[in-house]
This record gives sequence, C-alpha cells and structure tokens, in this order.
Amino acid sequence: MKKLSKSAIYLDYAAASPMDDRVLVAMQPYFTANFYNPSATYLAASDAKKDLDEARALVAHWLGARPSEIIFTAGGTEANNIAINGVMKSYPKSNLIISAIEHDSVRGVAHQANCKEAKVNKDGRINIQDLTSKIDDNTVLISIMHANNEIGTIQPIKEISEIVSKISRQRLKDGNTTPLLLHIDSCQAANYLDLHVARLGVDLLSINGGKIYGPKQIGALYVKGGVKLSPTLFGGGQEQGLRSGTQNVPAAIGLAKALDITQKMKNQEVPRLQKLQKLFIDLIEKNIPNAVINGSIKTRLPNNVHLTIENTDNETVLIKLDEAGVQAAAGSACSASSDEPSHVLKAIGLSTRQIQSSLRFTMGRNTTEKDVQETLAKLSQIVNH
Amino acid sequence: MKKLSKSAIYLDYAAASPMDDRVLVAMQPYFTANFYNPSATYLAASDAKKDLDEARALVAHWLGARPSEIIFTAGGTEANNIAINGVMKSYPKSNLIISAIEHDSVRGVAHQANCKEAKVNKDGRINIQDLTSKIDDNTVLISIMHANNEIGTIQPIKEISEIVSKISRQRLKDGNTTPLLLHIDSCQAANYLDLHVARLGVDLLSINGGKIYGPKQIGALYVKGGVKLSPTLFGGGQEQGLRSGTQNVPAAIGLAKALDITQKMKNQEVPRLQKLQKLFIDLIEKNIPNAVINGSIKTRLPNNVHLTIENTDNETVLIKLDEAGVQAAAGSACSASSDEPSHVLKAIGLSTRQIQSSLRFTMGRNTTEKDVQETLAKLSQIVNH
Repeated sequence: MKKLSKSAIYLDYAAASPMDDRVLVAMQPYFTANFYNPSATYLAASDAKKDLDEARALVAHWLGARPSEIIFTAGGTEANNIAINGVMKSYPKSNLIISAIEHDSVRGVAHQANCKEAKVNKDGRINIQDLTSKIDDNTVLISIMHANNEIGTIQPIKEISEIVSKISRQRLKDGNTTPLLLHIDSCQAANYLDLHVARLGVDLLSINGGKIYGPKQIGALYVKGGVKLSPTLFGGGQEQGLRSGTQNVPAAIGLAKALDITQKMKNQEVPRLQKLQKLFIDLIEKNIPNAVINGSIKTRLPNNVHLTIENTDNETVLIKLDEAGVQAAAGSACSASSDEPSHVLKAIGLSTRQIQSSLRFTMGRNTTEKDVQETLAKLSQIVNH
Repeated sequence: MKKLSKSAIYLDYAAASPMDDRVLVAMQPYFTANFYNPSATYLAASDAKKDLDEARALVAHWLGARPSEIIFTAGGTEANNIAINGVMKSYPKSNLIISAIEHDSVRGVAHQANCKEAKVNKDGRINIQDLTSKIDDNTVLISIMHANNEIGTIQPIKEISEIVSKISRQRLKDGNTTPLLLHIDSCQAANYLDLHVARLGVDLLSINGGKIYGPKQIGALYVKGGVKLSPTLFGGGQEQGLRSGTQNVPAAIGLAKALDITQKMKNQEVPRLQKLQKLFIDLIEKNIPNAVINGSIKTRLPNNVHLTIENTDNETVLIKLDEAGVQAAAGSACSASSDEPSHVLKAIGLSTRQIQSSLRFTMGRNTTEKDVQETLAKLSQIVNH
C-alpha cells in the first residue's frame, strides 16, 4: 500500500471520513481487553453490556429519543434496509413514497415494495405538492433523505412531518388504521444538522458511523416506540430482534463517541464551513465562467459544492485533480455501477452530457481556506487550459 | 467499566474471542490514515481497494476458493442470512433442509422458507438416513453447521456432500434443473478444521471474525461460482450486489489476518487443546461422579467441553464459578431469548431438567493446563458441597 502524500487535499468527506483519534481511543479497550459477548452472563460480560447501553443512551441523547428506541446496525445501508423493509413487510398491502433523489440503499429496498417516487424541483428540494398528491389511503411510509449525498440539498423535513401529522389525524377520524410513518436518512446530515426526532417529527431515522468520523459499517436506526417493524435479518434476536448477531461493542461505542463529538462541534463547524463554501463558490464564479452550481445554495449542507463545468469530462478532470493532489468525486462513491448516470442529477434536470461534466467537492474538519484556494487554482488551470 | 481481574479464567471462547494483537496492528492504518472509500476513484482510494482485495485473496486462499467467490459480510449471522435467504429467494418454490441443531441465525432465516429439519443422533451428529429421506425433487439447499456452537460436535460434511453430488448427478440425468446446494456454517469450526471448499465439497460457507480472534461484525461468505443468490440488502451494489454498503476495509483486513493466523496455528493448537480437553474430561469423570459429557467425544472441536451435572442448577453454578474467577456459559450466548431451553440439547434428547443442569466450557489460545485444573477444582467444590 502506497502511503498518501501528506499534502493531498481530501475533498470527498461525503464518501468517507477519517476516524477521529478520540473515537479510536474510546474503542481500543474493547478490541482485546473487554472483548466479551454482551449477551453472556458473567460480570465482565455484563460490564460490556453496560458500556454498550451507555453508547446507546448517548446516541439516544443526541436524537432526543429513549435508549430503547435505538437499534445498532451494521452501517447506514443496513439501517435504511431494516427501516424500509421492516415497515413494508409489516404492511404488505400498503405502498410507500420516496423522493427521486434518494440514496441507492433507500431506492433499492423501496422498489422491492409498492413504491412511488415524488419529484424534486430544479434546486434539488422535494416537490411538496407532488409528494402530497401521491399519498393515498394505503400509503404507510414516506422515506426522504435529510440531506442529499450528491448535491447536499437539505430537505424540508419539518414541513413534510406536519403534512404527515395532519393526514394521520384525518385517518384517525376516518377509521383508517394504516399508520403514515416518516423515515429520514440522516447519514449525510448528522455532522451538521439537528437530529432531534421530536423537533423533526419523524418515526424512523438512520445514521452511519463512516460518514461522521466514526468507524465504518456501524450505524444506528431510531425506531419510535410503537412502530411495528418486521425483521430483515434472523438470528439470536439481539437489538430487539431487528439486528441479530453478536453486537459490535467497540464499533457501537465508536459511533456514539463520533456522534457526540460531531454534534458538539457543529455550532462552530457549520459557520466555518459555510465561510469556506462561500469562498469556494465565489472563486468558481470568478475563475470558471462556464460553471454552474447544482442544487439550492441556501438550503444546503455547509460542506458541499457540486458543479457542472460545460464542455469538460469529469473523469478526465478528476484524474488531473488527483495528479495535482486534490481528491474529489464525480458523484456518489456508494454506487458500484458507476457507469450509470446519476439519478440525482437526472432528477434535477441535468442532461447526460451535463452529468458527465459534473464534480462533487465535499469538505470536512481538516479543510482549510488554503485548501480551497489551492483547489480552485488547480481546477481553473485544468479546465481553462 | 470495571477492569477484569487478570486472574479470571475465560472459558467462553465460543461466545467471543479477544482480538489478536497482530490483527489490531494490521487494522490500525485503515482507521485514520487510509480511511478511503474503496469505491472512490483517486489513487489513494484505489490503494484501499487493492488492500481490500488482498484481504479477499487471503480469505480465498484458506478456503481454496477464487477471490471472486468471497463476499465480505457484517458478521456470521449476516453471512448465514445472505446465503439462505439468497438461495431461497432465487428458488421460491423449492424447499430446504437444516439439521435440528443449527444456530439461530440459520434456523431463523431457514424457517422463513419451506424448511424441514433433519434429526440428529444422541451424540449430536446428524442422522444421515433421516437427512437423505427428507431430500425431495424440490430441495434446493441443505444447510448444516460444520461444528456445533453448543456441544462442539463436528458434522460429517464430506459424507453429506457426497450424497449431494450423487443426487445432483441423478437430477441431471432426470432433467431436473433445480440444483441441490450445500451450505455450511463454519463460524465455530474455523479455528480448528480444514475450510477447503473443494475438499469439503460445499457450495456456500460462512465464517465470522468475532469467533477467530478477529474483529466483530465482519464475516465472509464463500459463494461458489455460478451459484445464484438474490440479495438480502439493497444499495450501492458492493460485494457483487450481495452486501451493499461502504466496505469495512479495516475489519475485512482484520478478518483475513485473523483467519490466516488461526489456520496457520491449527496444527499446533488442535493437539494442544485436545490434550487439555482430555484432561478436562478425565478430571470431570474423576471428581464429579454425577456428570455426563454431552455430544460425541471423538468427533468434537478440541476446545469444547459440554456437560450435564445431575441435580444442579446451571445459573447458580455459573454465578458461583464467576465469583470464583471462572467465566463459562450455560449454552449459546447468541440467543437473546435465553429463557427458552436450548433446541440443541433438546434435539439430542436432554430433558428440560437436564438442560437446566448443563454447562459449556470452551477453551482457547490462552487456556493452560493450570486453568483446567483450577476450573475443575472450583467446579467440583461448587457442585459437590
């Protein structure tokens, strides 16, 4: 394995974040010393269970939830699968609605059931009117991502949850016993946005350690008390029967620590990144005249800059950027079938040609003003010459 | 969290194994420095992918498989679920057969489909005649654990795979296009037995990092080339579409390292543990007259001692053992619904009363002769007084 040159500028935090040193420190004792199976009965194992439950309580704290409402999962994809499959298997004759720009882990499982897609506007925000018109008496679930992984657009979750509440109250009056549940995928949002489930008004919420400077393949799913989920995985019945398998104590502790750090940091980190984002966009407008920023600039994650540069080929630009020491992305790294043009960019109206000219830069904790300036200098040299 | 006293004797290796220091060393660089998403396109991410594929090749090596036949999963439970659900969803009109003593992660998912259970003999070995009689023209899958997690019995996989081959050849002649596949759950076997899939004659095989001194919640599933599996989890399409989600590079590297270490050690470790096992059983026979060893003594994992001590209550004995510094188990720690009497012990003919008088001791790398002697001294004091 080649060591990465220290000078490389990493601008792909939406794909993966380095683990925070404090997270690793928190996890270390659970690899070799306190390695016990938390389901075992001796005292040392009960201690491991206590520590696991403390991690659960810390996650619950940041979500404004009860610890019993937090399920540890093996990552964000699994959390989304357990949520959506869990609801749809419990209500097999019902339908669900997702937006047209959901992550593949939502789209993939949603389309196993009777699924409708709500349109998004050109700015990447969900079309509320289209969403509302698609809700019928058999709709049991709406799954909308909190913030988009490609273009960073933040969705109006509060507004959607108010519509959901209103319909739920009407169903109660009408004697319709099908609940209308709201799931949000907060995997990309968890570093920057409020995750308080009561303030948001959601029934299910997914987060992912690998995107918040925590360990990979650990996630958490909030399941509001009373919400009925059928299991996706079968086994020993751990995590209230929803995620069987010996619990990953070190990773759960790492996830909780990572969430705690990132939520505590967000009041400083959001304005810091917003300033860098503004600089980034200003420099694009100044130096790359044939570039267009995709997605709403106003309601957007502070770390995301997504642009289309007319008459360029993004693969070529990315290779040149990599050679110049800048690591960025053409879109989601999560899709293995990367030859397909992004469904997100298609949904906001970009042509295949425009999609092939699009780049995603996602900043993070280590990104500095100098990084942004250097990136823009290199990018403008690559695309203007 | 209380620190475990160094003097405690840990005899629950079947529930969880401490991570080998060398495994942790192998994983460390991938937490903070080489944290990249292996699906990203810059060189540093390709390096992460190369390292992931090296880990895959190392796992494949020990299984006698091709790297493309190895799927990394989030643990043994998930591997078993992906295998069984994957086959049964591909052949929805077919049936499968499991033994009566499978792990809950096999039983749970198997019983979602049309599933028959083959009996086991009193010694915990599968009743081949009963198994054979249950195979019909629509049987697509047989899932048998390589070695049992409670009583340590090793199953005659080779014998079963020869029957499967014979039936497969007959089906070919008869024009029956339903394959007959053999899955084995080697989670408990991987420290001590040969995992070479061609020698065993199996189509699917599961292993689990947390039981082989590797990280928790990482596993691998061998899927023989050409075997058709439908996905259980949906998303970005990683791991050939069978386990979507950003790959857990550090854990995969840890799993490969752990498997490499344990398979290389097994030629020394098996006879060493067999000697301890003999000592353990001899001391039981000498000091605890009302004890009976459960499961075949001859075809048994070298680290497992499982016994019933007449007129004792295992919960009480375990608490007293824990107080005396010995950590053991009443059965599988994997079952969260621990109030149910073990289906494994029921299947080999134990009464509920006998099950409640049963104990499992599973030894491991750190177990010494002195540990065995001390354990037996303490155990006989507890049950004889």
